[in-house]
Amino acid sequence: MTDYTATVTVRLKRGVLDPEAETTKRALERLGFELDALRSTDRYELDLVAESEDEAAERAGEMAERLLANPTIHDYEVAVERAEA
Amino acid sequence: MTDYTATVTVRLKRGVLDPEAETTKRALERLGFELDALRSTDRYELDLVAESEDEAAERAGEMAERLLANPTIHDYEVAVERAEA
Repeated sequence: MTDYTATVTVRLKRGVLDPEAETTKRALERLGFELDALRSTDRYELDLVAESEDEAAERAGEMAERLLANPTIHDYEVAVERAEA
Repeated sequence: MTDYTATVTVRLKRGVLDPEAETTKRALERLGFELDALRSTDRYELDLVAESEDEAAERAGEMAERLLANPTIHDYEVAVERAEA
């Protein structure tokens, strides 16, 4: 068994409105910054013990499906790496 | 002038309590998942036009300092890449 860190990135699907990001963009513009677009994503770093990288990725994917992402409005990506000792 | 995407990752400093992450971890455990730790981070992807990668990174860093991160409790990282055409 090995320690892994699985990173689950959850972002809104294209076309889903993101009022929070829009508000943040406008607040930056009011501060004088120029930017064309702002997207926000949530990342979860999960420390877990698994037999293999594939098993860690599979479990993290299930956690995304069950809780971390809402499949109606979110896409998610899973990346796994061995935890630093 | 070139299009860049700057990614600002904002995370709580080590030692700062994260009750939301703790609640998410417990919810996953109630669903039967095993994990040692869960950390959540916010990522902002900023599309901006700049003279150079360095200028894009500098502006994104200023946006982090001024609005996106709270330096008392957050660390942040900035990564810049050329936007896909």
